[in-house]
Amino acid sequence: MKSDLPKLLLDIKDGVIDLGWGHPSARLHPLQKIKQSTLSMLSYDHAESLQYGASQGYGPFIETLARFLSQQKGYSKNKVFSNQLFITSGASQAIDFICTLLTVAGDSVLVENPTYFVVEGMLNTHKLNVIGVNCNENGLDLDDLEHKLKSGLKPKFLYTIPTFHNPTGTTMPSQNRQRLVSLANKYNFHIVADEVYQFIYFNEPPPTSLLDYDTQGKVISLGSFSKILAPGLRLGWIYSNPQLIKTFTDSPLAFSGGGLNHFTSTIVNELIGMNLLESHIHELQHEYLRRATVMDNSLKQYFDNSIEYIFPKGGYYFWIKFIEKLNTSNFLDKAEELGVSFRPGNFFTHTSDYDNFLRLTYTLYEPYDLVEGVKRLSKVFSK
Amino acid sequence: MKSDLPKLLLDIKDGVIDLGWGHPSARLHPLQKIKQSTLSMLSYDHAESLQYGASQGYGPFIETLARFLSQQKGYSKNKVFSNQLFITSGASQAIDFICTLLTVAGDSVLVENPTYFVVEGMLNTHKLNVIGVNCNENGLDLDDLEHKLKSGLKPKFLYTIPTFHNPTGTTMPSQNRQRLVSLANKYNFHIVADEVYQFIYFNEPPPTSLLDYDTQGKVISLGSFSKILAPGLRLGWIYSNPQLIKTFTDSPLAFSGGGLNHFTSTIVNELIGMNLLESHIHELQHEYLRRATVMDNSLKQYFDNSIEYIFPKGGYYFWIKFIEKLNTSNFLDKAEELGVSFRPGNFFTHTSDYDNFLRLTYTLYEPYDLVEGVKRLSKVFSK
Repeated sequence: MKSDLPKLLLDIKDGVIDLGWGHPSARLHPLQKIKQSTLSMLSYDHAESLQYGASQGYGPFIETLARFLSQQKGYSKNKVFSNQLFITSGASQAIDFICTLLTVAGDSVLVENPTYFVVEGMLNTHKLNVIGVNCNENGLDLDDLEHKLKSGLKPKFLYTIPTFHNPTGTTMPSQNRQRLVSLANKYNFHIVADEVYQFIYFNEPPPTSLLDYDTQGKVISLGSFSKILAPGLRLGWIYSNPQLIKTFTDSPLAFSGGGLNHFTSTIVNELIGMNLLESHIHELQHEYLRRATVMDNSLKQYFDNSIEYIFPKGGYYFWIKFIEKLNTSNFLDKAEELGVSFRPGNFFTHTSDYDNFLRLTYTLYEPYDLVEGVKRLSKVFSK
Repeated sequence: MKSDLPKLLLDIKDGVIDLGWGHPSARLHPLQKIKQSTLSMLSYDHAESLQYGASQGYGPFIETLARFLSQQKGYSKNKVFSNQLFITSGASQAIDFICTLLTVAGDSVLVENPTYFVVEGMLNTHKLNVIGVNCNENGLDLDDLEHKLKSGLKPKFLYTIPTFHNPTGTTMPSQNRQRLVSLANKYNFHIVADEVYQFIYFNEPPPTSLLDYDTQGKVISLGSFSKILAPGLRLGWIYSNPQLIKTFTDSPLAFSGGGLNHFTSTIVNELIGMNLLESHIHELQHEYLRRATVMDNSLKQYFDNSIEYIFPKGGYYFWIKFIEKLNTSNFLDKAEELGVSFRPGNFFTHTSDYDNFLRLTYTLYEPYDLVEGVKRLSKVFSK
């Protein structure tokens, strides 16, 4: 029987090269590695993967993950301990969970302006008062943040994407991370650091996790297997201080369900144990750099000097600024007619500051589609 | 490397037969069926299971589930449609999700007194005002409920376990279900019906899902694969009216993560498609009845007339009342010394009404352990 319901989140019209979706490449999904590790896990004669799991997460997986993270350049300068990790069902669920546990309706929370466009919806669902902080070429504008804090703003937390920011692609430099943590200490708020792009770097590892800069237990770092393995697994982790990890572990939700995603944890535990994750990340880094380079070349070829952008050092996106004052969202219909799409700048903000920006993703499509997509896009914006 | 972290939620001291945990039997976990369906799913050459899934849930799985539920005696008298289903990562997550979407801190919500002991913690996490409604041999005491509503109580929702109630084992009769829905209509509140035990019936199917009685879109029924397949999968569903299903589907959390548990959905879709679920449920029904019978016989043999209980018609539990006025929680230490444990009545309530009750689970252990456990328990309570 044919189902009319969608299978996937991706919703792309026939014939359109949609450079808007921030999704990984379907071709690069590690189906064989998942198959191999799942088979191995299911070959044990116990059925541990099927029972209610431990609240913090499946113990052996937490140990495996701690070892893995400790070994990664660009994750942490410090050894990662198992009492600093809590297993989630992805970064989105983690944000929701943190809102439930650490906030109450009416609390103020800060986000970057611009930021990941769905996060504001999640914060609104928790009836929080969402306030934007400006960004610059170094990510969060700390002067603007400090100004707001000095003016009396008392946020419960700041949500930030410090590395390979969505949508701007910027990375917060090391000294800014130190200053941000000082502000969190002084004004007593948590920093929810969405670090899901941390491993998707190109030539140089980015500054390590914001948790490395934490001095007074303010930082809650969100990790995820969505960008480095497979989003369908709904698996991620929180990396934070042992006290907060205990708060999450002791939460009724984590207890009642027996951890947040036990079965897929047992699979990824096996996959990391079989040494299959690191090579996959390297493959992604290599391939995404190739695609970013292709997109860069096409943008140069087809757009001349009408746009500005910085070549990304990692992550998923080009953040394109049109020099001319125009509103990119007015071009969406025409784009679709010409067989291409994108995320307009004003998707990521409530201000009009980014009307003349748009975000392009280079991870989802193959290089030849990227070239064709950028070519079509140039026609959309040509006079 | 040996991990010190727990693997599973179960935390039982060596030598103790713990009749307290409401967990399924590890021996009955359908490891072969899960293996077979996972292999089949992973043999497709697409990697659909690894990408972000659709917000409502994986389309083919929703269709499969709708067909399956429509065929089950004791689930619904009506055909179940795909626009009445939303895929969750289990009933606990569904309760959390409903609190986030439909309530705000300070709202009043009703629960049965007694009720599943973790649910109150979850409601408290959302800063809700939790109020207990009395129970009787027919489950929720509707006179007490009506009295509270007439007195001006305005709950956002009532959380109820209408079938094979935890901990009491009672089932709400059909006419009570009608009256409950009338009250929800009249006083305008939702009914969150936790129906995870619906399929675990013995000789006769119970009254069908509370949604069958719904007339004005008040009922939100929670289903789960935890009790009929495997809790480790973290997979369940909401069965409700299309308008609420759309609210859940359109929520930022469901969008951001691409559905709440995509990968395990693709496995269970395969498992149901291969006709492996129904036979497993029959096996559970058969085996759990056998175990309940063994526990019943042992209780009769070892306890004489000091206790009262009703033989369950399904579900997981015996709800035991001591005729003598005693507080069962005072016997926990002695029980552990004698190698047995249980959940005392006051775990499930804030009142002292159930001090002389305890809950025993018959699903986790094999019959010979149940006999030995009940025998030890009788010594705990002997003079």
